[in-house]
Amino acid sequence: MLPAMTDRTPARPAPLPVIFDGDPGLDDAVGWLLALGSFEDVQVLGFTAVHGNVPLALTTRNAGVVLALSGEAGRDVPYFAGADRPLLREGVTAAGVHGATGLPAAGLPEPLRAPEAEHAVDFIIRTVRARPGEVTLVATGPLTNVALALRLAPDIAPLIREIVWMGGSTGHGNRTPAAEFNALVDPHAAQIVFGAGVPLRMVGLNVTMQAVATPDRVAALRALGNRAGAACAELLTFYAGVYRDRYGLSGGALHDPLAVAAAFRPDLLDWQSMHVQVETQEGLNLGRTVCDLYGVTGRPANAQVAVGVRDREFFTLLLERIARLP
Amino acid sequence: MLPAMTDRTPARPAPLPVIFDGDPGLDDAVGWLLALGSFEDVQVLGFTAVHGNVPLALTTRNAGVVLALSGEAGRDVPYFAGADRPLLREGVTAAGVHGATGLPAAGLPEPLRAPEAEHAVDFIIRTVRARPGEVTLVATGPLTNVALALRLAPDIAPLIREIVWMGGSTGHGNRTPAAEFNALVDPHAAQIVFGAGVPLRMVGLNVTMQAVATPDRVAALRALGNRAGAACAELLTFYAGVYRDRYGLSGGALHDPLAVAAAFRPDLLDWQSMHVQVETQEGLNLGRTVCDLYGVTGRPANAQVAVGVRDREFFTLLLERIARLP
Amino acid sequence: MLPAMTDRTPARPAPLPVIFDGDPGLDDAVGWLLALGSFEDVQVLGFTAVHGNVPLALTTRNAGVVLALSGEAGRDVPYFAGADRPLLREGVTAAGVHGATGLPAAGLPEPLRAPEAEHAVDFIIRTVRARPGEVTLVATGPLTNVALALRLAPDIAPLIREIVWMGGSTGHGNRTPAAEFNALVDPHAAQIVFGAGVPLRMVGLNVTMQAVATPDRVAALRALGNRAGAACAELLTFYAGVYRDRYGLSGGALHDPLAVAAAFRPDLLDWQSMHVQVETQEGLNLGRTVCDLYGVTGRPANAQVAVGVRDREFFTLLLERIARLP
Amino acid sequence: MLPAMTDRTPARPAPLPVIFDGDPGLDDAVGWLLALGSFEDVQVLGFTAVHGNVPLALTTRNAGVVLALSGEAGRDVPYFAGADRPLLREGVTAAGVHGATGLPAAGLPEPLRAPEAEHAVDFIIRTVRARPGEVTLVATGPLTNVALALRLAPDIAPLIREIVWMGGSTGHGNRTPAAEFNALVDPHAAQIVFGAGVPLRMVGLNVTMQAVATPDRVAALRALGNRAGAACAELLTFYAGVYRDRYGLSGGALHDPLAVAAAFRPDLLDWQSMHVQVETQEGLNLGRTVCDLYGVTGRPANAQVAVGVRDREFFTLLLERIARLP
Ligand SMILES: [Ca+2]
Ligand SMILES: [Ca+2]
Ligand SMILES: [Ca+2]
Ligand SMILES: [Ca+2]
Repeated sequence: MLPAMTDRTPARPAPLPVIFDGDPGLDDAVGWLLALGSFEDVQVLGFTAVHGNVPLALTTRNAGVVLALSGEAGRDVPYFAGADRPLLREGVTAAGVHGATGLPAAGLPEPLRAPEAEHAVDFIIRTVRARPGEVTLVATGPLTNVALALRLAPDIAPLIREIVWMGGSTGHGNRTPAAEFNALVDPHAAQIVFGAGVPLRMVGLNVTMQAVATPDRVAALRALGNRAGAACAELLTFYAGVYRDRYGLSGGALHDPLAVAAAFRPDLLDWQSMHVQVETQEGLNLGRTVCDLYGVTGRPANAQVAVGVRDREFFTLLLERIARLP
Repeated sequence: MLPAMTDRTPARPAPLPVIFDGDPGLDDAVGWLLALGSFEDVQVLGFTAVHGNVPLALTTRNAGVVLALSGEAGRDVPYFAGADRPLLREGVTAAGVHGATGLPAAGLPEPLRAPEAEHAVDFIIRTVRARPGEVTLVATGPLTNVALALRLAPDIAPLIREIVWMGGSTGHGNRTPAAEFNALVDPHAAQIVFGAGVPLRMVGLNVTMQAVATPDRVAALRALGNRAGAACAELLTFYAGVYRDRYGLSGGALHDPLAVAAAFRPDLLDWQSMHVQVETQEGLNLGRTVCDLYGVTGRPANAQVAVGVRDREFFTLLLERIARLP
Repeated sequence: MLPAMTDRTPARPAPLPVIFDGDPGLDDAVGWLLALGSFEDVQVLGFTAVHGNVPLALTTRNAGVVLALSGEAGRDVPYFAGADRPLLREGVTAAGVHGATGLPAAGLPEPLRAPEAEHAVDFIIRTVRARPGEVTLVATGPLTNVALALRLAPDIAPLIREIVWMGGSTGHGNRTPAAEFNALVDPHAAQIVFGAGVPLRMVGLNVTMQAVATPDRVAALRALGNRAGAACAELLTFYAGVYRDRYGLSGGALHDPLAVAAAFRPDLLDWQSMHVQVETQEGLNLGRTVCDLYGVTGRPANAQVAVGVRDREFFTLLLERIARLP
Repeated sequence: MLPAMTDRTPARPAPLPVIFDGDPGLDDAVGWLLALGSFEDVQVLGFTAVHGNVPLALTTRNAGVVLALSGEAGRDVPYFAGADRPLLREGVTAAGVHGATGLPAAGLPEPLRAPEAEHAVDFIIRTVRARPGEVTLVATGPLTNVALALRLAPDIAPLIREIVWMGGSTGHGNRTPAAEFNALVDPHAAQIVFGAGVPLRMVGLNVTMQAVATPDRVAALRALGNRAGAACAELLTFYAGVYRDRYGLSGGALHDPLAVAAAFRPDLLDWQSMHVQVETQEGLNLGRTVCDLYGVTGRPANAQVAVGVRDREFFTLLLERIARLP
């Protein structure tokens, strides 16, 4: 499809076919640009938007903006609107962190076309069925779309190659002391996904809070000189303040980009197999991903949980791939 | 469509277009036969099966059996398979009450054709959109299909004329002290439906346990002399034992037939507007429909709850309508 | 002790030794007057006050007021302050129903003496130990004192003759759709008591809402012509309004007096043995007494639950006994 | 009382008067020996036993054994039996970790005298009232006794100098993925204590798992040559296996000794003020101490939570103090 792909030697594995489901959201956007710049590793099958950081109308539109930002790489990639609210709970947004539109940067392009008419969930079901065993889902928002697809079409569970999710934590939460935002917003959807028997990687706060967009890194992105690098720099600058003030970090955490990278470069993280269950009871611990690190429950592992990250290598990859975009 | 319908005088309202969603299940079957025999009142748009009393494969097949039993009335009615499990919880069945197949009667006909390929949820969405404001859903099983339709297509909420549900209770449960079976099996789905803003009637155990298939009534059904009456009699005999032994009733309760009748003959019941919320927390009260009878919560009504029933008139109607079938 | 008692024939059983624990509260007061007027049936060992309808300082004082009202009958009865808050939850009062002081009547006497220095819980423990197998506890408030006694001195569980509790419901609640006030205020204490293995009678809303202080009955109390009758009439008039407006009753319910009567005249009610568990999970059903009426849980009975009441006989008794007081 | 104390220079603060409440339990025992050997820092007012690692009869007896082991230091120290079960839940023990008796070592002395007749809770209440503002409680087991004291005598809350508790965790649990043993056994008691407004230090697994009785340290205790050192060495050897196998540590964690040291040497740990709430809802997170490390809840701090430990200095102290005992 892209000229660069014809250069690959035969030994190189084919790019991984991936559907990206998320709630852009500024770090989703940076993560999706990483994917679009990684054409030798990732075949972007489509972007499916879900409610989350901002309402669905905005996350859907932002999917189109990211594609427009990516130029040639995203030209033929379709995007879809999905669920406009969590399964059970009232929606929660994070406009304080992601700005009113979810993409708080100036001069972003308009989407080049409208979203597809097909529902995100139907697209996921249809695509997985069409390529049994091949499709990876990278989810970087609340898991409402993925859960609906699994319940509406349980036959796809054994057909999904892998789900990689940015969400949860083996330790502290962010939105509450117990819960990470994506898990908190739709804990019931998250529990459906963790219970579905699909190979699953969880990239939680315990690792993503170690992948920080420090001022130096933001400067490096800006110094790339391209529009994508400038947009990433501006977006990551926007939310550095809250990370500095609340968590004492030197910049915003690269949550979603790390999960995107984990899909095709799992070697960048350390993984531990364990049982994970999501708290769906209302109260203090709602949305907590209870990770059985020491195997005390005796329940079988249902996820590969990221427990370490090679942060420097990860950022080098991010910089290199953003550099390729216009 | 049926000759009898051409006899109606112009003043008579057109038959109510209804989708019947349920888990036959012997009382679903009796209820659906009541609907099929009520052609001047009800236009049966389709049967959509859901997991519940027995697994989905059986409830779907049983939908086909009921149509075959109804002869001409059900000849053109399509039926559909829906969700094979609750949204979050493990499935629970009631084979002890409904027999291993869900239709414990001898000599029932085979389905005349296979279920449609379309998913029950897609059928519901498509049909409601095609006839905005006209379609009633009568749900006599766990609400998984209805909840999935509402979440996948939130635009249909204001387009549904009414949902009539057999489920819940203002008082005691049956499967547990707190919960009625349909509510217990998928409490999350039930809460989605009660929270959807759709006009809703709840026909719960507090009234259905007053509509009992006494031995006299079973005999009257058998005495109709047709196959449908014989089948109803045999099915209702099957579960009379459990109602006698556990609840001290003189026969099985006509849960689902009463909800079916309520859709086109709401005058057979007394209704009270109130706020109802379904308990989704695990534990003692899971699945309980908490009915604010006295308005102590201050929350606005979201349902018409049946609080009384004219049982004798109801059974007269049932007998008359079953009599019309082959 | 009282002259009247010397008249009893030898065949008559000795008066039942009873500790009354409650939160007066106007219906507690009427109930305690009933006890004090029933000297041939009840030996009042003491009144122990607990937080509840009004704060502890007031319920304690009100215990002294009731004793003063009763004249000779209560002259030697000690009273004690107990727990000032529920075990876990924040306190909740019902000043809207019981008035700011808990005894909204004019011209009530001052307590004749101060409460004892001993803590209510210590008094209960000491008294039960001193008369093993003999002492009945009649609790007409939140069960905090009783639960503390059982946990502090588990040896008393097999020594208590019986606990009779006004609280809970087999059906609707009053403070919430699910919960009766006494159960809601300290559900953890209630669950401790239901789990303690002590013979237990529950007199819940399902029967007490049938024992109504109608205007005729209030008039009859007033017509007794004594101070106690006038006080009862005034107190019961006070809260008739809320019962009329909210529950459509013709007067206030005689909750606590019915429980007091049940202790020495259990024949006034119908009882069913069953398993009862109190919901301690926060949320919709907090404080609900889940009554396994049909034995579907398979758990052994832990309470005699009142399921019917001979209301007329009960009120006749109440009137007769109040008449004896000054 | 002890000769050594007369040597203190006037500038030295008086020993801290402390009640030790716990469930010995082998690490309670080591901790209490540390206290008994620290006579210039700690005045041991009494040991109060609670159910926990082993049943109450054994924890009470073990309190007597520890006193006997300590020789002169514990000669006049009274000990008391307290609660024999948690407030609400069924008791849970840890005999797998602490052995059937709770003190799995050979040749331990018999208690020199019986426990006092007074209840542990009454002793706590009486002692705190007698020395307002002076008494510290060091609790190294489930908090049932402390919670009962606070509820029975709420007046003592402002009179307690400080509660130091070994329990909870800012991160992972041990008995479940979410909960530490002491918190899990009686989460309701723990929440009562955290809500009581008493100055509170929490020494949780996040620090105690860093204070490990390595083989070298066990050898150093044994090399002290005294009976107490030998007993400590044998006890700590007993549970090294489970820590090695489950947590990958080189020895058992010195949970309770670290909390004991924290009472009079808080400088050995790093502390952070924060809001802590204990999960009392049944389910996955029952007993979790939800620590608001980042202040996202906006609730005021109610505890000083240990977040770091100077492990080497701590063990040096432990060794030095055990050395003083017979
Ligand atoms: Ca995101
Ligand atoms: Ca059904
Ligand atoms: Ca009361
Ligand atoms: Ca301990």
